[in-house]
Amino acid sequence: MSLDIDRIASLPQRLRNRAPRVHCLLNTVAQKLVADGLSALGIIPSMTSSADEVAHFARRADALLVNLGTSTPEMRRAIDIAVEAGTQAGRPFVLDPVKSYASPIRHDFALSLIANRPFAVKANAAEMADLQPAASKATAVVETGETDRITDGERTALIRNGHPWLAAVTATGCLAGALIAAAATVEDDPLLAGAGAMALIGVAAEMAAERSRGPGSFAMELLDALAAIDASDIHQRLKLTHG
Amino acid sequence: MSLDIDRIASLPQRLRNRAPRVHCLLNTVAQKLVADGLSALGIIPSMTSSADEVAHFARRADALLVNLGTSTPEMRRAIDIAVEAGTQAGRPFVLDPVKSYASPIRHDFALSLIANRPFAVKANAAEMADLQPAASKATAVVETGETDRITDGERTALIRNGHPWLAAVTATGCLAGALIAAAATVEDDPLLAGAGAMALIGVAAEMAAERSRGPGSFAMELLDALAAIDASDIHQRLKLTHG
Amino acid sequence: MSLDIDRIASLPQRLRNRAPRVHCLLNTVAQKLVADGLSALGIIPSMTSSADEVAHFARRADALLVNLGTSTPEMRRAIDIAVEAGTQAGRPFVLDPVKSYASPIRHDFALSLIANRPFAVKANAAEMADLQPAASKATAVVETGETDRITDGERTALIRNGHPWLAAVTATGCLAGALIAAAATVEDDPLLAGAGAMALIGVAAEMAAERSRGPGSFAMELLDALAAIDASDIHQRLKLTHG
Repeated sequence: MSLDIDRIASLPQRLRNRAPRVHCLLNTVAQKLVADGLSALGIIPSMTSSADEVAHFARRADALLVNLGTSTPEMRRAIDIAVEAGTQAGRPFVLDPVKSYASPIRHDFALSLIANRPFAVKANAAEMADLQPAASKATAVVETGETDRITDGERTALIRNGHPWLAAVTATGCLAGALIAAAATVEDDPLLAGAGAMALIGVAAEMAAERSRGPGSFAMELLDALAAIDASDIHQRLKLTHG
Repeated sequence: MSLDIDRIASLPQRLRNRAPRVHCLLNTVAQKLVADGLSALGIIPSMTSSADEVAHFARRADALLVNLGTSTPEMRRAIDIAVEAGTQAGRPFVLDPVKSYASPIRHDFALSLIANRPFAVKANAAEMADLQPAASKATAVVETGETDRITDGERTALIRNGHPWLAAVTATGCLAGALIAAAATVEDDPLLAGAGAMALIGVAAEMAAERSRGPGSFAMELLDALAAIDASDIHQRLKLTHG
Repeated sequence: MSLDIDRIASLPQRLRNRAPRVHCLLNTVAQKLVADGLSALGIIPSMTSSADEVAHFARRADALLVNLGTSTPEMRRAIDIAVEAGTQAGRPFVLDPVKSYASPIRHDFALSLIANRPFAVKANAAEMADLQPAASKATAVVETGETDRITDGERTALIRNGHPWLAAVTATGCLAGALIAAAATVEDDPLLAGAGAMALIGVAAEMAAERSRGPGSFAMELLDALAAIDASDIHQRLKLTHG
C-alpha cells in the first residue's frame, strides 16, 4: 500500500475551509492549550462537561474528543452521555485514555469506551500496553512516541516528525487527540486522519522549535505555527514511512 | 449626546489606582487568561466557585463577573449564592451568558440572572438574539462583535477597535466581561464603563497585534499591552461613534 | 549556622537527574502553569483530584503538593485521601494554604492539614498571620514576599531574589509550592529544600525579566529560564542572608 501524501498535507487547509466544531471532554489542565490550538486552525472548540447540558453540545458538534485526564464520577457520566448523544447523531469520537494504567477505574472506563467503537484511539506506549488488545479493535490506533505509529489493523504509517519540547509542554498530547477528532470531520479514512493530525502537529512543532529558546517560547510559537502551516510545509518536512 | 472620551481613556489609570478586587465565577478554560489579564492592569482577581465559601469571596470583592461558560448544577448554585451575597453587600455584577442558546438550562439560568439586574450584560450577537428582550432590561448591554455596541437603552456607543486574533485566543471575550466588572468599580455610568472596557481591550489588541506573528504571540503581547496601555494610546486609536 | 550554598545552587541539576513525580492537588486556575513549570525542569507532574483515584496517583508520586486555591467539599475529600495515602507510602507533602483567611472552612481545613505534619508550609504574610502559631509546628515554614523567609524553627534563611512581575502572573506562587515539593525528593533538609526552591524560582524570574517587556512575555520567559537555569546562575545571582 502507499498513503496519499496529498491528503495528509492538505489537512490544515481542509480544516480551515470546514471550520468544524469539536466538543472536548477534557481535563481542566489541558483545556486552554487545546482550545487555542484548535482555534489557531480555525476549528471551533467547546468544552462543557456538565451532565445536564453536554448532550446538547455533543449534538451541535461535528466530532468529539474524549480525554480521560480527569476521571471524576461526574466526568465519566458526562462522557457517557456525550458519547451516546454524539453517536446517535452520527458524530465520530476520538478516545485519549490518559494514564489508563494509573487507576483501575480509569482502566475499566477506557475499555468500556473502546467497546463503543471510537473513530480512533490515541495513546502512548504505556497506555497501549495497558489497553491491548481491546484498543486494536478501534477503527484506528495512533500510538504516540518519538515515532508515531498509526494503524487501522491492515495498514500502518510511521511518522518521525516532532520535537522533544512537545513533552515539556503540558497538553500537547491532548491537542494531538483533538486534532484527530477534527481531522475525522474532513477525512473519512481513519488512517489518513490519524496520520494527518500527527503530521500536522509534528511539523508545526519543528517549525516552532526553530524560533524558540525553551519550552515557554516553544508553546507560544507552536500556536503561531499551527495558524501558519500549509501543505508545502508538510510536503517539505514530512518523515513518513510505511510500517 | 456625546460621551466623555476622557473618562473612557482614563480607565486603565483609574483601575491601576484603585486596584479593585473582582471575583469571577468562570469556566475553567478561561480562568488563567482572565486572571492574568486583570492582574496586568493591577486588578486583583479571585476565582473560587465552591458553594460553601463563595459568599465570603463575593463580599470581599468590589465587583463580580458571572460567566456561564461552565454551567454545572454546583456552579449555578455557587453563582446564585455569590450574586445574592454580592448584591446585599452592594457589589455590581456583570453577566456574560456564554452560549445561552446552546442548552435550555443555560438559557433559563441566564434569564433568571438578568432578572437580578446586573450592572451590565455582555453578549455576542447569537447570545443577544437568544436573550432579547430580557437583556435590554439590564442597566447596560454590551454586544460584542467586529463593532461593539454598548447601550443603556437611551444612549448607544459603537466601538470599532480590536483585531481578528482576539477570536483565535480562547477567553479574550471572558476577559472583556471581567474588565467591565472591574470598570464598574471606578465608573458609575454603565455606558461609560462598558465602552471603556471594550475600548481598553480593543486598543490593547491593536497594540499587541503590531508586535505579533500569530495567535500565540498575540496572546502574550496582549498581556504586555494591557500592562502598558495608557490614556494617550486610547485617545490615539479609539474608533468611537454614537449609534 | 551557615547554609550549604552548593546544595541550594545544585537543586535544578539534582531535579533534572532525578525527574521526580509530583502529584498536585491544585486549583484549576493554576494547573497549567504549575505543570509547565515543573516540566521545564524535567519534573513529572500529575493533577487529578478525583476522590476515587487520587490515592493511586499519590502512591505513584514521589511527593505531593496540597494547594487550597480551590476548596470544594470534593477537593477537601480528595486532599484528605491523597495525604493519607501519600503519608502511608512515605511521600512528603507541602501545604500551600491559599487565602486561608478568606473563609472559615478553608482556615479550619488548613489547620487540620498542618496537624498532619507537612514537609513544609508555604504561605504569604497574610496567610502566615492567619495560621500562626500552628504553621510553625510544620517541619519548615516558607513565608513568601519581597524577601522570602525560610525557617525550620532553629535556623532562618532570607532570600531577596525575584521580580515584581511574579505577582502579575497568576500561579507563580503555586509553582513555588510545587517546587518545594519537588525539592523534597532530592533534599532531606527542609530548610535547604525550601531555600533552594525559592532561590530557583527567584533567580529564574530575574533571568526572565531581563528578556521581557511585560507580564505576558515574562510568563513565557520564566519557563525558558527554568529549563535553562544551572548552578552557576544561582551562585552568581543568589541574595541569601541568615535571619
